Amino acid sequence: MLGSTHGTLTTDSRRARAIACGEHPAQVVHGRPAEDGDLDVSGRPLYAAVPDLDRFFRPESVAVIGASDTDGRPNTGITRQLLAWAERVGARLHPVHPTRQSVFGIPCSPSVADLPEQVDLAVLLVSDPLPLVGELAEAKVKFAVAFASGFAETGEAGAAAQERLAAAVAGSGGLRLLGPNTNLNAFERFRDDLDGPAIALITQSGHQGRPVFSLQELGIRLSHWAPTGNEADLETADFISYFAERPEVGAIAAYVEGLKDGRAFLLAADRAARRGVPVVAVKVGRTETGARTAASHTGKLTGADAVVDAAMRQYGVIRVDGLDELQDTATLLARSRRPRTPASAQPRAEGVVVYSISGGTGAHFADLATEAGLPLPTLSEAKQAELHQWIPDYLSVANPVDNGGHPVGDWRGPRILDAILDDPEVGVLICPITGPFPPMSDKLAQDLVDAAERTDKLVCVVWGSPVGTEAAYRETLLGSSRVATFRTFANCITAVRAHLDHTRFTTAYRSPFDEAPRTPSPSFRKAKALMRPGQQLSEHAAKQLLRAYGIRVPREQLVTSAAAAVRAASLVGYPVVMKASGARIAHKTELGLVKVGLTSASQIRDAYRELTDIARYEDVSLDGVLVCQMVERGVEMVVGVTHDDLFGPTVTVGLGGVLVEVLRDSAVLVPPFGEDQARAMLTELRGRALLDGVRGAPPADVDALVEVVLRVQRMALELGDDIAELDINPLMVLPRGQGAVALDALAICR
Amino acid sequence: MLGSTHGTLTTDSRRARAIACGEHPAQVVHGRPAEDGDLDVSGRPLYAAVPDLDRFFRPESVAVIGASDTDGRPNTGITRQLLAWAERVGARLHPVHPTRQSVFGIPCSPSVADLPEQVDLAVLLVSDPLPLVGELAEAKVKFAVAFASGFAETGEAGAAAQERLAAAVAGSGGLRLLGPNTNLNAFERFRDDLDGPAIALITQSGHQGRPVFSLQELGIRLSHWAPTGNEADLETADFISYFAERPEVGAIAAYVEGLKDGRAFLLAADRAARRGVPVVAVKVGRTETGARTAASHTGKLTGADAVVDAAMRQYGVIRVDGLDELQDTATLLARSRRPRTPASAQPRAEGVVVYSISGGTGAHFADLATEAGLPLPTLSEAKQAELHQWIPDYLSVANPVDNGGHPVGDWRGPRILDAILDDPEVGVLICPITGPFPPMSDKLAQDLVDAAERTDKLVCVVWGSPVGTEAAYRETLLGSSRVATFRTFANCITAVRAHLDHTRFTTAYRSPFDEAPRTPSPSFRKAKALMRPGQQLSEHAAKQLLRAYGIRVPREQLVTSAAAAVRAASLVGYPVVMKASGARIAHKTELGLVKVGLTSASQIRDAYRELTDIARYEDVSLDGVLVCQMVERGVEMVVGVTHDDLFGPTVTVGLGGVLVEVLRDSAVLVPPFGEDQARAMLTELRGRALLDGVRGAPPADVDALVEVVLRVQRMALELGDDIAELDINPLMVLPRGQGAVALDALAICR
Repeated sequence: MLGSTHGTLTTDSRRARAIACGEHPAQVVHGRPAEDGDLDVSGRPLYAAVPDLDRFFRPESVAVIGASDTDGRPNTGITRQLLAWAERVGARLHPVHPTRQSVFGIPCSPSVADLPEQVDLAVLLVSDPLPLVGELAEAKVKFAVAFASGFAETGEAGAAAQERLAAAVAGSGGLRLLGPNTNLNAFERFRDDLDGPAIALITQSGHQGRPVFSLQELGIRLSHWAPTGNEADLETADFISYFAERPEVGAIAAYVEGLKDGRAFLLAADRAARRGVPVVAVKVGRTETGARTAASHTGKLTGADAVVDAAMRQYGVIRVDGLDELQDTATLLARSRRPRTPASAQPRAEGVVVYSISGGTGAHFADLATEAGLPLPTLSEAKQAELHQWIPDYLSVANPVDNGGHPVGDWRGPRILDAILDDPEVGVLICPITGPFPPMSDKLAQDLVDAAERTDKLVCVVWGSPVGTEAAYRETLLGSSRVATFRTFANCITAVRAHLDHTRFTTAYRSPFDEAPRTPSPSFRKAKALMRPGQQLSEHAAKQLLRAYGIRVPREQLVTSAAAAVRAASLVGYPVVMKASGARIAHKTELGLVKVGLTSASQIRDAYRELTDIARYEDVSLDGVLVCQMVERGVEMVVGVTHDDLFGPTVTVGLGGVLVEVLRDSAVLVPPFGEDQARAMLTELRGRALLDGVRGAPPADVDALVEVVLRVQRMALELGDDIAELDINPLMVLPRGQGAVALDALAICR
Repeated sequence: MLGSTHGTLTTDSRRARAIACGEHPAQVVHGRPAEDGDLDVSGRPLYAAVPDLDRFFRPESVAVIGASDTDGRPNTGITRQLLAWAERVGARLHPVHPTRQSVFGIPCSPSVADLPEQVDLAVLLVSDPLPLVGELAEAKVKFAVAFASGFAETGEAGAAAQERLAAAVAGSGGLRLLGPNTNLNAFERFRDDLDGPAIALITQSGHQGRPVFSLQELGIRLSHWAPTGNEADLETADFISYFAERPEVGAIAAYVEGLKDGRAFLLAADRAARRGVPVVAVKVGRTETGARTAASHTGKLTGADAVVDAAMRQYGVIRVDGLDELQDTATLLARSRRPRTPASAQPRAEGVVVYSISGGTGAHFADLATEAGLPLPTLSEAKQAELHQWIPDYLSVANPVDNGGHPVGDWRGPRILDAILDDPEVGVLICPITGPFPPMSDKLAQDLVDAAERTDKLVCVVWGSPVGTEAAYRETLLGSSRVATFRTFANCITAVRAHLDHTRFTTAYRSPFDEAPRTPSPSFRKAKALMRPGQQLSEHAAKQLLRAYGIRVPREQLVTSAAAAVRAASLVGYPVVMKASGARIAHKTELGLVKVGLTSASQIRDAYRELTDIARYEDVSLDGVLVCQMVERGVEMVVGVTHDDLFGPTVTVGLGGVLVEVLRDSAVLVPPFGEDQARAMLTELRGRALLDGVRGAPPADVDALVEVVLRVQRMALELGDDIAELDINPLMVLPRGQGAVALDALAICR
C-alpha cells in the first residue's frame, strides 16, 4: 500500500499544561529567551526540544529486526534495500531473526539483546512493534522505525494500539520512534554529486513525497526525507526543528495532512524563522471534503483551515496548494539561500526585472507578476540608455526588457544580462522562454547560466516548452545549481514572491515566544472572581471582565426600576442607551431590546417600561436594565476568542455591522502573537479602508484596536480553560487618539 | 525579431454605425435571427460575416513576392520554408521577382500581373506591401500575407502607414490581408498522423504561440495556427468565426494582447457559442503594468480588463492566465468534444470521481478540486459495495476512491475503472499519479488508456513526476488520444472545470443577438427631448429620463419656495424627503443637503430654510428643492452606464452604501445581454446575500432589479451617443413583489 503513512493521533496542546492556573510563581520573566522546561501562562511550552537526529539519518550501526533473504517475502526486498543503503552510507548492518543463522550472508542475532554492539537505529519489520520497545530501550537503541501498518489509519482499535505503542515509547527512557506505518523513504539514495543548499523533505505520504524527492533527477539537491507515518512519537515538528539547524539545508518542504500538536508546530516554525530557514508546506484541509477525506484516511482532524492558515502565516511558513508549487518554491528558496553570511551582509534588493526575447512574452509575464504583487521597478534612465547600446531604440527596456531577439545571439547577450544584474535596485532577474528556438534559446540559456555564476542575485528561467526534452533545458539550465528553472510562469511567480515575502519576514521577525507571558497578570485574579462555571455571563458581567483586563467599556449601571434608571442616567451622563440585560439574550437589537439616544427622564421612564414589556412578551428573563453612556460613532469591529482543537484559544478580529456580517470579513490570530502580527492581520481585512476613514470620516484609532486585540490575547491565554467563548461585538473604534470602547460583550464560562 | 506580430490598431466599434440614431425604420424585428447587414438600435452589427479562409490555409497556388535563393538573405530561408510547405500541402508555388529568372529552379515571374495563373495566396516578402495591393486585387488574388514590420508596433508614423495599408485593402474589392508584421506560423508543419478533434490556434505573438503549437510533439493534434500580427485587415475574431465552423476543430486557443473591435469579438464568440466550440484565451491586461507594457509593445490599449473579462464570461470564452493553462485546457476541451452527435444525445453526467493508488493523493486532489468547485458526488452504497469486491474494506471508496495500490497490479485494475466509469452519475474520472512506481504506475497508465477506449466519458490523468521522461508518461499516456494527460493537479482541475462550465453554458445558451433591439423603443423620443448636450442633468431631469424608460422613481416635485414645498408634500404624501437640486451637486448627504423623514409642514419649512442656507454657504447653485416621497427600506444598489473604448456603453451593477463602496463590490455587463446573463451577474456580487435577506430581512425583489438592469441596457443602446454617464445611486430594491425605486440619479449628456 502506497502513501498511507499518516494515521497520526492529535495531542491536545493543553495536555502539556503542567501548572494550574492560579499557581504561577510571582516573578516576571518577560522578554527572556525561552529555555527547555519554560511554560507560558497557559501552561504551554515556550521551547521546542530539538531531537538530535544525526544518528537516525546517518547511523553507524543498524539492526534489522525481522530481516529476511527468502525469495518472495516482502521483508526480503526491504532487507535488500537496507543493505544497499547501509553500504552506501557506511553503516554496519545487523540482521535480527529468532531462527535464521544469517541473512544475505551476514550473521543473524536471535534477538535485540544478542546484538553484537549497541546500535543507533533499529528497523522493525514485524507486525507488532509494541513488545520490542522494552528490549530496544534495554539495549540503548537510539532510534526505531516501525513499518507495520494497521494502527490509527484503520480505525478505533488501531488507534488504541497506537496509543499503547506511543505510551511505551514515551516511557522507554530515550528511545525515539518513527512510525508506525512508515516506509523506506528515509533510506533512499540521495545524490551526493549535487551542490548548493539542499531541500529537506517531510511527508505524511510516500506517494505524495515522490515528486519532490525525484527533483534530484533534475539536478536539485535533496538532503533528507522524513516519512513521518502515523507520528506515534517523532512528528513533523521534530523534523522541522532538526532540519532548521542543519547547515546543508536551504529549505524545508513538507506535505502535511494533519498536525499532531499545534504548539509543537508553532515552536518548530519559530525555530526555522529565527534561523531564516524557509518552510514550504502543502497542508490538506482547505475544504470540508478534503478534511473529511484526510480524516477517513488518517483517523484525525486536519484542523480548522483558517486557523492553520493563520498559524502558518504568522510564523512564516509558506503554504502552497500543489506539489508542483511545493517543488518549485522549495527549489527557489533553497537556491536563494546564501551560505551563512554575516548578519551585516547587504540584503539583496527586492526589484524584479523581466527579460525576454519577445515583447509579447515580457508583457504577459509582467502582467501576471504585477498582479501577484511582485515589484517590477522601472529601470533608471541611465540604465535604459546603457541597455540601448545593445538593444534597438524602438524596443522598451524600462522593465520588462525586450531585446527583440537578435542581441542574444552574439556578444551583446552577456553584456545585457550583466548590466541588468548590476543595477542596485535589482535583486531578481527572470527570463521567460516560452519554447525552443535553438539559434537563440540555446545561447540564451547558456548566457543565463554563466551570468548567474557571476552574481549573487537570483536568476530565474521559465522554460515553457511542454516537450521538455530539449538540451537547453535538460543539460544547460538543469545542469546549473545557480539558476532556478521553472516550467510555468505561475510557479515562477509564486516562488519568487515566496522568496521576497520570506526575506522580508525573517528580516523583521521577532519571536513572540520571547515576549510570551509566563505569569498571570494582576487582572487575572479579578477576572477569576467573575467566572460562573458553565454559565453565560450577563452583558454587565462580561463587560466587567473586559474592564478587568483594561479594555474600555461605556460608563453604565445595571438598574431594576425606572426611577433607578433616571438616577443612573444622570450619573452616566445624557444622552444614554438603555438595554435589557440578562444571561441569555441574543439578538437584542432585533427584538427591540435596545433604545438609543435617550435625552430626558421621561424618555428613560418610557424606555424602561417598553423594554420590560417586550422582555415579558418575548419571555426573556432579565436581571435588569443597563443604562449606558452613549458612545460617539466610530468603526464597528468584532473581537473574540474561539477554541481551536489543535491550537487552543485563538483571537478573531472582524468588521462589525450587518453588511460585513454578510461578507464574513474577519481574520484569526493564533497566540502567541506580537503587536506587529496583530497589526499585519488587520491589513488582511477586505474592508480595512473603513479604518483609514472613508467618505470624509476620520481615520480610526488603530493603535487602540491593536491594544484591545493584545489584551484579548492575554485573556485567552490566562482564562483559556475557564472561558468557552468570548465576543466583543461591537467594539467601537473611535477616531485616532480617542481609543476603542466595547459596547457589548458575550462571555460563556466553561 | 520574435513575437512582435501585433501592432493592431483599435477600431472603435462605433465606426461601424451606419444609421443615425433617430432614423431607424419603424418595423419591429425582435427575435428574428440576424442576417448579414442587420444592425441593432445602436447601429452596431448583429451578424459577423465569416470569411472563407479555406484557400488561405489550404491554397492550391501560392505566389511568393520577393522570393530569393541567394545564400544569407533572410528571404531565402523563408522561401525555402514556403517551398517545403507548398510541397507538403500540394500547392503550386510561383516565385515573383523583378530580376530573377528562377528561384530554387522554379521559373520566376517578374510581377504579380505576370503570374502564370490566378493564385489563392500571395506571400509578400517586401518591406512595403502597400504598392502591391492594387496589383494583387487586379490579379484577383484572394489572400495576402505581409511579413513586413515597421508599422503600428513602432509608433505613430508606422501606425499611419498601417492605416493607409488597411484602407487600401478595404477598398480593394475582395483581397484579404494577414499582417503586416506577421510570420510563417500559418505554414508550419502540422502532423497529420494524429486523430481526434484538433486545437486551432490564434496568436498575436509567435513566441507566445510556440508552446501550444509544440503540443503536437506530445501527440495533441493542431489543425491551424493564425498569427494575426498587426491585424490591419483579418483579425482574431475572423479566425474564431472561421474555426468555429470547421468540423476538425475541437477547441480554439487564443493568445490576445488587444482586441481590434469589441463587437466583432462578441459576434465571433457568439458564433462559437452557438456551435458549442470552446474558445480558450489568454488576454494580457489584468494590471496597469501589463496593459501599459502591451500598449508600448503593440501601440494599442488592452481594454478595461473588467469589461473584457465580463464580455468573455457572457459569451462563454474561457479566460486563463498562463500559457500552460491555455495548453491544458484547450487540450481537454478538444478531447472532450464528441464527434457531431445528434442534439438528442444524452449529455454526460457532471460527476467527477478521483481515483488513486494513495489515500493521501486522493485526499489532496479532492481538497483542491472541491475548493475549485468541481462536483465530487459520493458514490452510491451499491457502487461502493461493487468496488469493495476488489478493494480492501478499510479503504474509502466513497470518492475519492483509494485502491491502496495493489489492485492496480492485476486483473482487478480494469474492473475497478470500468465500474467507476459505468456509474450513471459519473462523467469524468481523474487519476492523479504523483510519480512513477513502475510495478504499479506502468500498468495503471495502460489500464487508464484502455478504459478510456471503452467509454464515452472523460478520463484525465495527472502525471506528477517532474522528470517526465518515463515511458508510462511519454509513450503510454501521451500515446493515447482518448486520455487527457496533465502535469499538475491545478491545471487538471482548471481544465475539467472549464469543460463542465462550458458544457453547462452551451446547453443553456441563447444568443442575446437574436433578441437585440433593432429599432428604438417608444421611450426614445421622450428621452431625446430631455437631453441637454454637454451638460449634467439635474436630479429631477435625470429621474424623468429613467421614468421615460419605465424605471420607477419616487413621487416628487421640484419647488422653489417653502410654501410650495409644503403644498408639494401634501401631494406627494407624508413623510417626505427633501433634497437640494442642481446640476452639479455631488455628495449631497455629506454636505447636509438631504433631509429625511419630514412629517409636518413646520419641519418642511425648517428644512427648506436649512437646505438653502447650506447651499448658499457651500456656494452650490440650486435649481430648487426636491420634495420626494419617502421610500421604505430595501437593499441599496447602484446601476450605471459607462462608456468603454472597446465595447461602447456597458452596464454596471453594484451594492450601494458606504461599506460596499469600500469593497467595490460591483460587476459589469457588456450589451447585448439577456435576462439570464443579468441574473447570473448578480450572483458574482460578494454581498449578494443581502438580496436574499439577512438578519430576518425579507428577500429583495431581484426580478425588479433585473428588469431595471435590462431597461438601463436599453437606455445604453438607444442613448449611447447622447449620454456620457448615467448612474442610479441608490436604486432601492424593495422586498419581493414590491419593485425597485431609483432614489437618486446622475446623468451627464455628451
